[in-house]
Amino acid sequence: MKQAKVLVFLIVSSFLFAHDHDLENSRKIIFPDIPGYRTLKCDLHQHTVFSDGAVWPTVRVAEAVIDNLDAIAVTEHLEYQPHKDDIPHPDRNRAYEIESKASENDSLIIISGSEITRSMPPGHSNAIFLTDANKLLLDDPLEVFKAAKEQGAFTFWNHPNWTAHRKDGIATLTDMHKMLIKEGLLNGIEVVNEYTYSDEALQIALDNNLTMLGTSDIHGIIDWEYDVPGGGHRPVTLVFANEKSTNGIKQGLENRRTVVFFNDMLIGRPEHLLPLLKASVTISEAKYQKGKQVLNVTLHNNTSCEFQLQNKSKYTLHNSGDLVTIKPLSDITIEVKTIEVLDKVKLNFTVLNAVTAPATHPDVEFEIDLKGTN
Amino acid sequence: MKQAKVLVFLIVSSFLFAHDHDLENSRKIIFPDIPGYRTLKCDLHQHTVFSDGAVWPTVRVAEAVIDNLDAIAVTEHLEYQPHKDDIPHPDRNRAYEIESKASENDSLIIISGSEITRSMPPGHSNAIFLTDANKLLLDDPLEVFKAAKEQGAFTFWNHPNWTAHRKDGIATLTDMHKMLIKEGLLNGIEVVNEYTYSDEALQIALDNNLTMLGTSDIHGIIDWEYDVPGGGHRPVTLVFANEKSTNGIKQGLENRRTVVFFNDMLIGRPEHLLPLLKASVTISEAKYQKGKQVLNVTLHNNTSCEFQLQNKSKYTLHNSGDLVTIKPLSDITIEVKTIEVLDKVKLNFTVLNAVTAPATHPDVEFEIDLKGTN
Amino acid sequence: MKQAKVLVFLIVSSFLFAHDHDLENSRKIIFPDIPGYRTLKCDLHQHTVFSDGAVWPTVRVAEAVIDNLDAIAVTEHLEYQPHKDDIPHPDRNRAYEIESKASENDSLIIISGSEITRSMPPGHSNAIFLTDANKLLLDDPLEVFKAAKEQGAFTFWNHPNWTAHRKDGIATLTDMHKMLIKEGLLNGIEVVNEYTYSDEALQIALDNNLTMLGTSDIHGIIDWEYDVPGGGHRPVTLVFANEKSTNGIKQGLENRRTVVFFNDMLIGRPEHLLPLLKASVTISEAKYQKGKQVLNVTLHNNTSCEFQLQNKSKYTLHNSGDLVTIKPLSDITIEVKTIEVLDKVKLNFTVLNAVTAPATHPDVEFEIDLKGTN
Amino acid sequence: MKQAKVLVFLIVSSFLFAHDHDLENSRKIIFPDIPGYRTLKCDLHQHTVFSDGAVWPTVRVAEAVIDNLDAIAVTEHLEYQPHKDDIPHPDRNRAYEIESKASENDSLIIISGSEITRSMPPGHSNAIFLTDANKLLLDDPLEVFKAAKEQGAFTFWNHPNWTAHRKDGIATLTDMHKMLIKEGLLNGIEVVNEYTYSDEALQIALDNNLTMLGTSDIHGIIDWEYDVPGGGHRPVTLVFANEKSTNGIKQGLENRRTVVFFNDMLIGRPEHLLPLLKASVTISEAKYQKGKQVLNVTLHNNTSCEFQLQNKSKYTLHNSGDLVTIKPLSDITIEVKTIEVLDKVKLNFTVLNAVTAPATHPDVEFEIDLKGTN
Repeated sequence: MKQAKVLVFLIVSSFLFAHDHDLENSRKIIFPDIPGYRTLKCDLHQHTVFSDGAVWPTVRVAEAVIDNLDAIAVTEHLEYQPHKDDIPHPDRNRAYEIESKASENDSLIIISGSEITRSMPPGHSNAIFLTDANKLLLDDPLEVFKAAKEQGAFTFWNHPNWTAHRKDGIATLTDMHKMLIKEGLLNGIEVVNEYTYSDEALQIALDNNLTMLGTSDIHGIIDWEYDVPGGGHRPVTLVFANEKSTNGIKQGLENRRTVVFFNDMLIGRPEHLLPLLKASVTISEAKYQKGKQVLNVTLHNNTSCEFQLQNKSKYTLHNSGDLVTIKPLSDITIEVKTIEVLDKVKLNFTVLNAVTAPATHPDVEFEIDLKGTN
Repeated sequence: MKQAKVLVFLIVSSFLFAHDHDLENSRKIIFPDIPGYRTLKCDLHQHTVFSDGAVWPTVRVAEAVIDNLDAIAVTEHLEYQPHKDDIPHPDRNRAYEIESKASENDSLIIISGSEITRSMPPGHSNAIFLTDANKLLLDDPLEVFKAAKEQGAFTFWNHPNWTAHRKDGIATLTDMHKMLIKEGLLNGIEVVNEYTYSDEALQIALDNNLTMLGTSDIHGIIDWEYDVPGGGHRPVTLVFANEKSTNGIKQGLENRRTVVFFNDMLIGRPEHLLPLLKASVTISEAKYQKGKQVLNVTLHNNTSCEFQLQNKSKYTLHNSGDLVTIKPLSDITIEVKTIEVLDKVKLNFTVLNAVTAPATHPDVEFEIDLKGTN
Repeated sequence: MKQAKVLVFLIVSSFLFAHDHDLENSRKIIFPDIPGYRTLKCDLHQHTVFSDGAVWPTVRVAEAVIDNLDAIAVTEHLEYQPHKDDIPHPDRNRAYEIESKASENDSLIIISGSEITRSMPPGHSNAIFLTDANKLLLDDPLEVFKAAKEQGAFTFWNHPNWTAHRKDGIATLTDMHKMLIKEGLLNGIEVVNEYTYSDEALQIALDNNLTMLGTSDIHGIIDWEYDVPGGGHRPVTLVFANEKSTNGIKQGLENRRTVVFFNDMLIGRPEHLLPLLKASVTISEAKYQKGKQVLNVTLHNNTSCEFQLQNKSKYTLHNSGDLVTIKPLSDITIEVKTIEVLDKVKLNFTVLNAVTAPATHPDVEFEIDLKGTN
Repeated sequence: MKQAKVLVFLIVSSFLFAHDHDLENSRKIIFPDIPGYRTLKCDLHQHTVFSDGAVWPTVRVAEAVIDNLDAIAVTEHLEYQPHKDDIPHPDRNRAYEIESKASENDSLIIISGSEITRSMPPGHSNAIFLTDANKLLLDDPLEVFKAAKEQGAFTFWNHPNWTAHRKDGIATLTDMHKMLIKEGLLNGIEVVNEYTYSDEALQIALDNNLTMLGTSDIHGIIDWEYDVPGGGHRPVTLVFANEKSTNGIKQGLENRRTVVFFNDMLIGRPEHLLPLLKASVTISEAKYQKGKQVLNVTLHNNTSCEFQLQNKSKYTLHNSGDLVTIKPLSDITIEVKTIEVLDKVKLNFTVLNAVTAPATHPDVEFEIDLKGTN
């Protein structure tokens, strides 16, 4: 009945919003900025009917807008074109073109890209920020990486833990990967792809100075794959950028300024993860109970990520054990037994749902100045 | 990452089901069979990227399976091909071919069809049960209807209330429609399309002996358009068929054996709507309160449709006024004040959410035999 | 651990509110004022441990506050004292005294009263606005009514449909009731008590010029009896008062200015029910669809009552049949097919969930002035 | 209207159950038995109007039944009787008597007891399994403990962390407590009371060989205090008993066979907590992914407690980091990267939400035998 695709999704969105305000809000992916940078929520690996995805590119735009993303990349398979009987000889920039047009009234950034789709080595990789994807249609994989580089692309290894390529799911660099990294032809690695996370990929990122990424690699529909009605979210790469622009994201990625959000987990280098944690959980109120030596501290979670904190302070808590859970975008009040009424209180927590290296959980510290309030 | 589209949706579905059992159940469209016929839930007007829809045909199959449909029709626009730059000269049977393949392991029936897409008159019409849609690519609309007829098609007028064609939204037969009906070239009419319902279309169906249909005319994603997480459903045509088969549905449609389900409304001719209502709300228990002249009657709603009944019995109710609501797939117990303890009790209700003609609501009667139970 | 009962409930309430904002809001009973009167939500029949209830009087106050009531009455049984072994010779004003103290920081009004608890006739009656309940401890029931009258009480017949007193549940005046009414000793009648409604009591109220009341007659816990977590509400009497005060309520009751709210049903005389309906469902926006003869009208429900409207306008609707449901405190937009673009549009609906007499549903009319907006 | 208190609650319960099956199920506190013992869910500290509570004793029975408890204790304050003007000179066994009668058709066990209510030292203590509470009405607190002992009572220190008694909330034994323990007059200690938990009380229990208890100390209404509609539960003491009987519970307590459940935390000695954890989280399926070296292990949570596990296995997981959450009464499937296909797989987790000592979290090990399945 309706004939304009973009219109369909604008209407769809307003319908959705009119009928289910909770879903409208709960599906938004929200993270605060950190000092010096904007925190941009990016899903940099996606497919449409222009390779092996199941939707027209406009759907990717509509999904990203309602999920509150700042940027998505178009990364159709270069070599894998199962719809070629129906969509013959496609211009490899075509999906990008459609998404760019569909998003022109939104603040969503569309990044051009391609998935270099080879058997191992090197497996699959994404090259993004391309100027012309067609120029990557070359036989020799090395030539493809070089062609991408010539266009100034940022390139990352996709799902190094993929069991179709490694039956044990253990991400491991091959000689070819080592060479690509050395030559500056491979800049990042997915530590999260779709439903999977890889401690080994995280270690490779750390050992080889690679940018960490988390992507949905979506082929179907976000709502279905990530149980959005049940409160789920797709994985995203949080990029810390000087500005909200294509170039801002590119510089952020090139400088490895990323944290990956996957289910309720955050993965990143300490230099970015720690400021993000600091901005994510903040103290909204701290006050001694009247006439008591028990300090009520209200912690606010400014994000879409549930936090699991383990109390490492020198004080015990009056209303819980050492495990403290803070639901997304919610408050909790902990009651801290400081023995005496103090002017300064330091609280320390291990963030169990965050990692800076395999099985390595960062600590956060809150310094509370109570002078004049007691 | 995943490369087989069909597989995507199988996996997607099981993921969905694993995580949100409520949604898995609440989204299913459920109606009971009626004496002599199976009640088949059909959505006979749908689009994909092969005309102006936003998804690959496999998505239509996945949606229909989780919505518990029995059949869907593929009805791409013949003349309106906004994706033709990307999908040039398509075989007009192609979407049907893909959906047929995608559903081969399901019991879902895929019906071939096409939307004849003209300005008024005759506007848009669907021809379904085609053998070759390409043969309908003809200039003269009358020739198209004839070509469809030659293939044994069942043909219906789409959204006769569409405000792009009638700015007042009032469905009205043109001379051309009258001629098509007279010649047997137009067999049905949508009384429901997408979010709209037309009393005038219902009257036209009754006056001209046309089959009544209700369709989603889906272009985007069912979950978004019909607030599925909030408990919504797409509109469907319930076809009363001798058997669950393409032919069974065809015969049902040709013999006008349909009821339309739209939001919590049911629209149909008395000869089909009444047996459906009888099968939809049944008495699961009836028993006098101990030592009282008050009869507890438990009504069970066997459907996905909420019922609004208005008590027209000669008895009043002890636990409500005359308006009785029964939620989908739920029980309620009404307490009937029969003055004396009776062996036979007749209850009468007007079904406010059902219509057999504009503003005409059918009555249902329950005869309860209590002999030997008191 | 905690020792102050009132404190318990203050703390309890804030805990509840902190943890479940939806329940905090959804349990509130909300109705708008009408021209000339405040609409006060009153539950005028309640029990505590001071007769046969299961809670200390403070609980009644806490429940009423979170349910957003304006007033509750204390109506312990005078003659039925099953806890007398534990609470011997109680001052019959005692529960009132405790509730008054517990509510002194709230705006909740506590009304003193007693339930005159006799076998039939006259069955049970409440006398409220008493100055000293102890003075009603008399043998002859007629003397009790007279003693209440001397204190200026307002008196009403409780659950005339109670199957313990009438096995058929049919409210019927006895000679004694007729005499009490004639003498001005019986002023009102419960058309709703706990889970029950009585068409016959409604007719008695109309025929005998009695005030209509609906009460919870709560003995246990409101949350349990009325499925508050599932969205339920206790029945209340809406009293239309000149001011929010004990006296305002008394005058409202004496002048029969009431509407009863029970489940999603409203029961009252037209002179009060109609202005309430007018204030309850209002038009928040009306605008023609651009270039169409279809008028979008947004109806807002300002109450905790779900409305079921049946369209009786001369226009049909584009997005629904004639049954229009408006959820509590929500908007819906109906699309009215006015054939031409009009400057004035009249819409008429029967309010199916409201009654002014048995099986008699009032109509509401909306006059929409669109001059200058088209 | 209704006059039998017990009846009220039976009816209330069935109403509740009829209308909100989710709440009916989600509020049940469920834990599995362990080898050699039944796991009995006990709330051993409660108040009613017979001291400073807000409900008649029958409400405590009704709450316990719908919460699926096995036993509750009646522990009115001996010395604190704020309702004495209304309930004068009460028999201190009276609340027990009422609860016993109210529960006679349920399998709920009612345990007689009293709260010895003194300022510090020794503060408040409960003596349960009394034969006559009246005999504890003595001036000298030591005499009270001796009188309780003579009746064979089990005695425990209530809320040693109570800030009304210790402004810093730090549980600390006084000389008097040490003496009572030494004399066998004090057998247990609350590590959890109402909304509070005490690491220091846990340490005292361990150092002094005391039984650990967790109680609601409920004065008001369980549904309100513990956000039952939002999924909350009251704290309980799980007692590991030879049989479900008063004596079984007594022996369990005397032998320190307890684990405390508080929010989603479990507190206990390793000898009871470990078997409970083993029975709580079980493997329902383990199977290698077809052709892969990745083992799918489905863990089932048999309890009402959400589990937070930290993976300490030598294997990493394919679908999550090291933090694994299992919702109450739910399944999750973890994907274990075992490098090779193995016949035996050992998995190790730290249970972050369980403690055996302050900040000391037990480990659980799963040995999976896959021989013949690969």
